[in-house]
Amino acid sequence: MRAIFPIDQFNSKQTIMSEQSPSYAITIRLRYPDLSGLLGKITTAIGHANGFIGAVDIVGVQDGQIVRDITVNASNVAHGQAIVELLRQLDDVTVINVSDRVFLMHLGGKIEVNSKMPIKTRDDLSMAYTPGVARVCMSIAEDPDASFALTIRKNTVAVVSDGSAVLGLGNIGPRAAMPVMEGKAMLFKEFGGVDAFPICLETQDTEEIIATVARLAPTFGGINLEDISAPRCIEIEERLEEMLEIPVFHDDQHGTAIVVLAGLKNSLRLLGKELSEVQIVINGSGAAGTAITKLLQHAGAQHIVVCDTKGAISTSRTDPLNPIKQWLAENTNKDCKAGTLSEVIRGADVFIGVSVADVLTENDVASMNRDAIVFALANPNPEIKPALAAHHVKIMATGRSDYPNQINNVLCFPGLFRGLLDVRAIRVNNEMKIAAAEAIAAVIDPEDLHTDYIVPSVFDRRVTGVVAQAVADTAIATGVARRGNKPSYHVT
Amino acid sequence: MRAIFPIDQFNSKQTIMSEQSPSYAITIRLRYPDLSGLLGKITTAIGHANGFIGAVDIVGVQDGQIVRDITVNASNVAHGQAIVELLRQLDDVTVINVSDRVFLMHLGGKIEVNSKMPIKTRDDLSMAYTPGVARVCMSIAEDPDASFALTIRKNTVAVVSDGSAVLGLGNIGPRAAMPVMEGKAMLFKEFGGVDAFPICLETQDTEEIIATVARLAPTFGGINLEDISAPRCIEIEERLEEMLEIPVFHDDQHGTAIVVLAGLKNSLRLLGKELSEVQIVINGSGAAGTAITKLLQHAGAQHIVVCDTKGAISTSRTDPLNPIKQWLAENTNKDCKAGTLSEVIRGADVFIGVSVADVLTENDVASMNRDAIVFALANPNPEIKPALAAHHVKIMATGRSDYPNQINNVLCFPGLFRGLLDVRAIRVNNEMKIAAAEAIAAVIDPEDLHTDYIVPSVFDRRVTGVVAQAVADTAIATGVARRGNKPSYHVT
Repeated sequence: MRAIFPIDQFNSKQTIMSEQSPSYAITIRLRYPDLSGLLGKITTAIGHANGFIGAVDIVGVQDGQIVRDITVNASNVAHGQAIVELLRQLDDVTVINVSDRVFLMHLGGKIEVNSKMPIKTRDDLSMAYTPGVARVCMSIAEDPDASFALTIRKNTVAVVSDGSAVLGLGNIGPRAAMPVMEGKAMLFKEFGGVDAFPICLETQDTEEIIATVARLAPTFGGINLEDISAPRCIEIEERLEEMLEIPVFHDDQHGTAIVVLAGLKNSLRLLGKELSEVQIVINGSGAAGTAITKLLQHAGAQHIVVCDTKGAISTSRTDPLNPIKQWLAENTNKDCKAGTLSEVIRGADVFIGVSVADVLTENDVASMNRDAIVFALANPNPEIKPALAAHHVKIMATGRSDYPNQINNVLCFPGLFRGLLDVRAIRVNNEMKIAAAEAIAAVIDPEDLHTDYIVPSVFDRRVTGVVAQAVADTAIATGVARRGNKPSYHVT
Repeated sequence: MRAIFPIDQFNSKQTIMSEQSPSYAITIRLRYPDLSGLLGKITTAIGHANGFIGAVDIVGVQDGQIVRDITVNASNVAHGQAIVELLRQLDDVTVINVSDRVFLMHLGGKIEVNSKMPIKTRDDLSMAYTPGVARVCMSIAEDPDASFALTIRKNTVAVVSDGSAVLGLGNIGPRAAMPVMEGKAMLFKEFGGVDAFPICLETQDTEEIIATVARLAPTFGGINLEDISAPRCIEIEERLEEMLEIPVFHDDQHGTAIVVLAGLKNSLRLLGKELSEVQIVINGSGAAGTAITKLLQHAGAQHIVVCDTKGAISTSRTDPLNPIKQWLAENTNKDCKAGTLSEVIRGADVFIGVSVADVLTENDVASMNRDAIVFALANPNPEIKPALAAHHVKIMATGRSDYPNQINNVLCFPGLFRGLLDVRAIRVNNEMKIAAAEAIAAVIDPEDLHTDYIVPSVFDRRVTGVVAQAVADTAIATGVARRGNKPSYHVT
């Protein structure tokens, strides 16, 4: 799983960005006479059209005609259509239908709710439902905290969104956000063994979201807020955290911050620099930028300058600043640096971008300190193309899976919530976030660290267990765990 | 599954009411020397104490000692404790521990959320999550109704409660209500193949419940309201039904009404009476009583008198009536009968009780018309003990599983929601409710009808399919189905 390749291969990887992907996979059903050579003609045609052939299946043979399903990865929708068009023009070949594998996979949704035990007899019914269930209900009525043991609260979180800032797609609303939240629920189960249920809300009003989520709390053991636009997401999280008996975690803020801290710790370790000494420039003063700033400071960073579209944020700015930027002005940039991103990045050791594509030039990265570290996390297109940065930086990370050093929240949230649920934590504090980051970083042995391997693969199965253990231990140590006995993790 | 026994066996069944039940099952772990005759001594002791022995398992044998788990059904908690005490007093036998099977079954909750497909590779991830999911999101953003095909809305309902009227337990709050809602979710899946998720709300305010459920709607294909106290439940359902694009169904009202209508249709068929002609007395003017009244009227009943604790409700009542009772006064009891339940039940053909235990005397049922029908549905103890009514009525039904003719909502809601989801119905109308009742009734062949077999068993696997088909067909016929193509049911 360790896809290590030297940084000067970025140029060749560059082309992959527009190559075939399973996210544009189509399955083409063809009928043609069962003659030798015809399948070769078909696959050759697909190859000429730059389609990547996956599975080739026989559906049936009848009257000398053969029907096959051929799955082809295209590079986009138009490319898929072009491949099909080419096949239509082949003599003897009939295209029966074309199905889009991604849409097929989404039919009826991607998750389901199952009983843990069957109800096949009256005895089953009388234990899981009336009359047996009444004793369990009364036991919770007497001790509401028993709900954390005797109901799904023990292992279930809500993935809550209002659909206002979904992936890079913007404000697409709650219905269109559902596939993302279902996908998140899948990741929770697959990577953390956590039952997660998506809740997409028909409101984007801060007060209504807070009131609604607060009323859902008796059902869940934790709340994962997702894809809610800034600055509302910050207030929503803070106020819910104060109100509720269960942890509330906005993954876009803190999940990102934790994985950034993990990657940065390993980068600095590799380059022999100290977090407290390096000059850090963060571009983007939204939810993620602010959360990263705060967490890096808690972890010891002393020299952070945050930029917005107008340049460095400082107390000397004369334009009106919103409350978040006001906080940043007062708590970062001690030297009160002023100027554009290009001006303040000069001599910096670390650039962290949580903004938009292509705001960083080759000259900008060239002006950084030696052994520069660039985390260009804008999705899907980073703040600077890796190929441009390659010759000027020592370590480059992005949010993408097709480059090394992917800063992906999935490294954090499954293990984090696993740990929270197992000790019935009431909240997530900074100590727990830092412990999670350290656990992620420590998955890589120091001697295995490499400029292209500063964070583990998202498929590295060791990650969930160590993150859960660190979060659980720290929750107990800092007094936010309801349950004191330390669980031992064997996630496989 | 057809547990048919003649009505004069009610006397002997009576004792079963206080006998051993799996809802009081305990598993006792014992250690004793592996000597012949000792297991016999143990089981004899349990038998003498009236415990019902289920599974007997060997846990292990070591140093001539054997450890066994013996599962025993007791008749209540104290009885279980007495059995354990007796075993403790046996020479050579050590009670290692005792576990309550019902509580064990509830540990960690009874349902889980699973992925429908694994996420093991980057390709899986890129189809189920980013970047592939983005195309699905955008397709829903362009056509929000596509969410009924491409998300869990296609097959998922919320089971929503505020914990204000849970089973016979009263207002035990949302946390304590969760085990019941989880159990309901299990029944939805087991009997209807419907994914159901419990939502227990931290509010009992009508406006807050309405606002909250309305905001959850983009996540679900239907809403099942459950165990919300009257009269709030009626307003909550009516207003949500008007607001939402998905069906809202309060099972305690309409589920009960549908199964009552099914049972009554078969009872009348068996006795050769007509719904439009029989005199019906309903005791209980809450949510269920009102819903039953309305549905029976839609189905053709002409002569209904509803009683509350003060007797028959009519326009001649002088005490203040709440809006529901006012509606009942104006729309039932055409002859304006007055008096207590005992007075108005004289000569009636049908009694339907949705009230409290033991409000009906033996004299009351003796005063009914010949071939009387009594549905005494108060839970867990009916309006009259079956043994008392047995000699005076022709057909007796209760809500209990330990008597024949159990009027159980599980005969309705799984199939009803199966049908609603399959045609993407926007609401449940009276035609659909009547069609569901007829479908349940018609599961029993007319020649199989018997005074002790007027409704199918809850485990009769034919029920869901026919109810779903009837509901789907009627939704299409009455223009409340989004999807017009008629599905065909093969639920097994």
